[in-house]
Amino acid sequence: MLYAPKEEIAARITKLKKLMKKASLDGAFFHYKIDYYYLSGTMQDSLLFVPIEGETILFVKRELSRARKESPLEHVVPYRSIKEIPEHIGPMKRVGLQLDVIPYNDVIRFKELFGDAEFVNVSPLAKELRKFKSPFEIALMEGAAAISKKVYARVPELLRVGMSEIELGGLLEAYAKTLGHEGLLRVRSLNYEAYTWHILSGRTGSIVSQSDSPMGGLGLSPAFPVGASLKKIKKNEPVLVDFGINYHGYHMDQTRMYAIGSMPDLFVKAYEACREIHYRVLDKVLEGLTSKELFEYSLDLADRLGYGDYYLGFKPHQVRFLAHGIGIELAEFPFITANHTYPIEEGMVFAIEPKMVFPKKGACGIENTVLIEHGNYRILTDNDESIIIV
Amino acid sequence: MLYAPKEEIAARITKLKKLMKKASLDGAFFHYKIDYYYLSGTMQDSLLFVPIEGETILFVKRELSRARKESPLEHVVPYRSIKEIPEHIGPMKRVGLQLDVIPYNDVIRFKELFGDAEFVNVSPLAKELRKFKSPFEIALMEGAAAISKKVYARVPELLRVGMSEIELGGLLEAYAKTLGHEGLLRVRSLNYEAYTWHILSGRTGSIVSQSDSPMGGLGLSPAFPVGASLKKIKKNEPVLVDFGINYHGYHMDQTRMYAIGSMPDLFVKAYEACREIHYRVLDKVLEGLTSKELFEYSLDLADRLGYGDYYLGFKPHQVRFLAHGIGIELAEFPFITANHTYPIEEGMVFAIEPKMVFPKKGACGIENTVLIEHGNYRILTDNDESIIIV
Repeated sequence: MLYAPKEEIAARITKLKKLMKKASLDGAFFHYKIDYYYLSGTMQDSLLFVPIEGETILFVKRELSRARKESPLEHVVPYRSIKEIPEHIGPMKRVGLQLDVIPYNDVIRFKELFGDAEFVNVSPLAKELRKFKSPFEIALMEGAAAISKKVYARVPELLRVGMSEIELGGLLEAYAKTLGHEGLLRVRSLNYEAYTWHILSGRTGSIVSQSDSPMGGLGLSPAFPVGASLKKIKKNEPVLVDFGINYHGYHMDQTRMYAIGSMPDLFVKAYEACREIHYRVLDKVLEGLTSKELFEYSLDLADRLGYGDYYLGFKPHQVRFLAHGIGIELAEFPFITANHTYPIEEGMVFAIEPKMVFPKKGACGIENTVLIEHGNYRILTDNDESIIIV
Repeated sequence: MLYAPKEEIAARITKLKKLMKKASLDGAFFHYKIDYYYLSGTMQDSLLFVPIEGETILFVKRELSRARKESPLEHVVPYRSIKEIPEHIGPMKRVGLQLDVIPYNDVIRFKELFGDAEFVNVSPLAKELRKFKSPFEIALMEGAAAISKKVYARVPELLRVGMSEIELGGLLEAYAKTLGHEGLLRVRSLNYEAYTWHILSGRTGSIVSQSDSPMGGLGLSPAFPVGASLKKIKKNEPVLVDFGINYHGYHMDQTRMYAIGSMPDLFVKAYEACREIHYRVLDKVLEGLTSKELFEYSLDLADRLGYGDYYLGFKPHQVRFLAHGIGIELAEFPFITANHTYPIEEGMVFAIEPKMVFPKKGACGIENTVLIEHGNYRILTDNDESIIIV
């Protein structure tokens, strides 16, 4: 097991404090574990307090000795109830709390304990920090990419006529776990549950669902109506394998296309268009275009290639993003979308996924997780990109 | 795929309205999908509105046609933003919303839209309803139990020296998915993520973690420090398999014990004590004891059997529940715990799990999912309960 080094955590907290100063915060609480993992190194049941001045304190409910081992923070102390927290903390006027994810009733409890303080949402600061990956984080993401690469190499060995989508997904997952894949993916959402087994074949690739994805898939039941299903994989149909990995909390996302026998021409051509969009957008990333410009450039390109009606889904179900940042959440900053106006900068990691969906026929596309470094891009998921026929 | 019948959903909403009337609610919103799945039959991205008088409306963001197929409700309508909701709804004084799970910022948006209304937490009503299972739900839970039974039958076929805990977990999961297991478990918690692969061997059975469980396990990394790990399974050590199933959203939970070669005597005897506690508590359930009385009875029994220091964990890490209700959440009403005072009644389903944990040595225990019906109990997870030696 790898633990976050002391300097890494210290550097993150120093950067956070700069953002807190700008936001005129006297202190901030982190109780949603994704963010306190980033700032402390542990996911034990905790509450992290970062004051603008003074020592950061990690309050731990369960389990203290593991939290002390996992986190390099100096002040890791036990607590049983948030009622005990105010005594450890001086008076504050403006306090940060993760108001976008912490349930209403829990926030009210904080407000009651710190009656005079104004609470503001600190999550935008945490998200801003996590937009840029450190060398330590990139090493973990390379670890995730290495697992992903091995998993994709297994697809042609496992794929056979008559197996269900979920059977293939399960076998890939079982293998990935032996390599250190945590088995779950994480998104910042009340109702959307990310999952590893997004494997769609033929017509299920054109099924839309609750997810903000060009293709939702059929899923197993109304209780989980997304992703791989019990549909059997047939000859001569596109098999889209979009399999997420999580290693030490860091995600990796990629998509490759497979077929048994042959791939129908419709999908071969559309896949080539996806690859063209993928690489031409990456070139434009290097030219410094903003998120919105990149997204619009890709729409225009898809149109010119003749795929305007199928790009990122078919009407009215098209999604409004081409890429999502990726790290300890499957989808975090930066995004390539019409709604964001920042450029894609050095140190950012994102998954770019041009996909085409044809009503009642199926879907195809490519996805790579890409790092911007040294003024260039580096594809972390650098597996073979050709359509694999078995 | 099975869809909830019209009469089933109608009956649930009728019961909810009775509870709403008692709570003087004019209407209630359900936006956390676990509860709107229960009340509508779909998990498409939606917002359910139940007025005390008038028609229930399911507002659907994505994907409308699937929601209309999955839900038997009559009024299933599209929406894009909660700003559109007030125009569909008359004036209300007291409104229910799931304040225990919906993020603070989202609740504030509701409050702004319905400026004059008082918002109260409706989740206790939803939880109260779900305490009792209908014949339709019991049939789905029997489906989950049938999958669980097959999965446990595979353990002796797969278990071998030198495989890691997570390898065994992955293989069981891959198999379970081919039978319809959704692959994820659900709990009502901001920070705790339930998982299927709770497989602990030898000393990892004594490792405590963030989870409210007698034994947390080692997990794969600080980012997911619970459950099965990369530790290799050895000869002559206890292997605890606590593998959860989810079928059409309904969970099933059980635990059985295995060993390669032989089971150390310490665990054989402790396992027998667990079985004795399990069955004697079930007899007391039928006698009508309350949750608190049942829990205390079990503590006393564990003491008298000589296991007071190891029962439900060792000091100071002992947990405070012996059983958790189970349904569309892995842990829901009823609980057998010192903090609850209701009896366990007809129609309730719960997982009872007496376990013993020995510091630095390991853990053992039994767990069954049990239904109370016809004045008796019925064990849904009715696999062989002996320690299996391979």
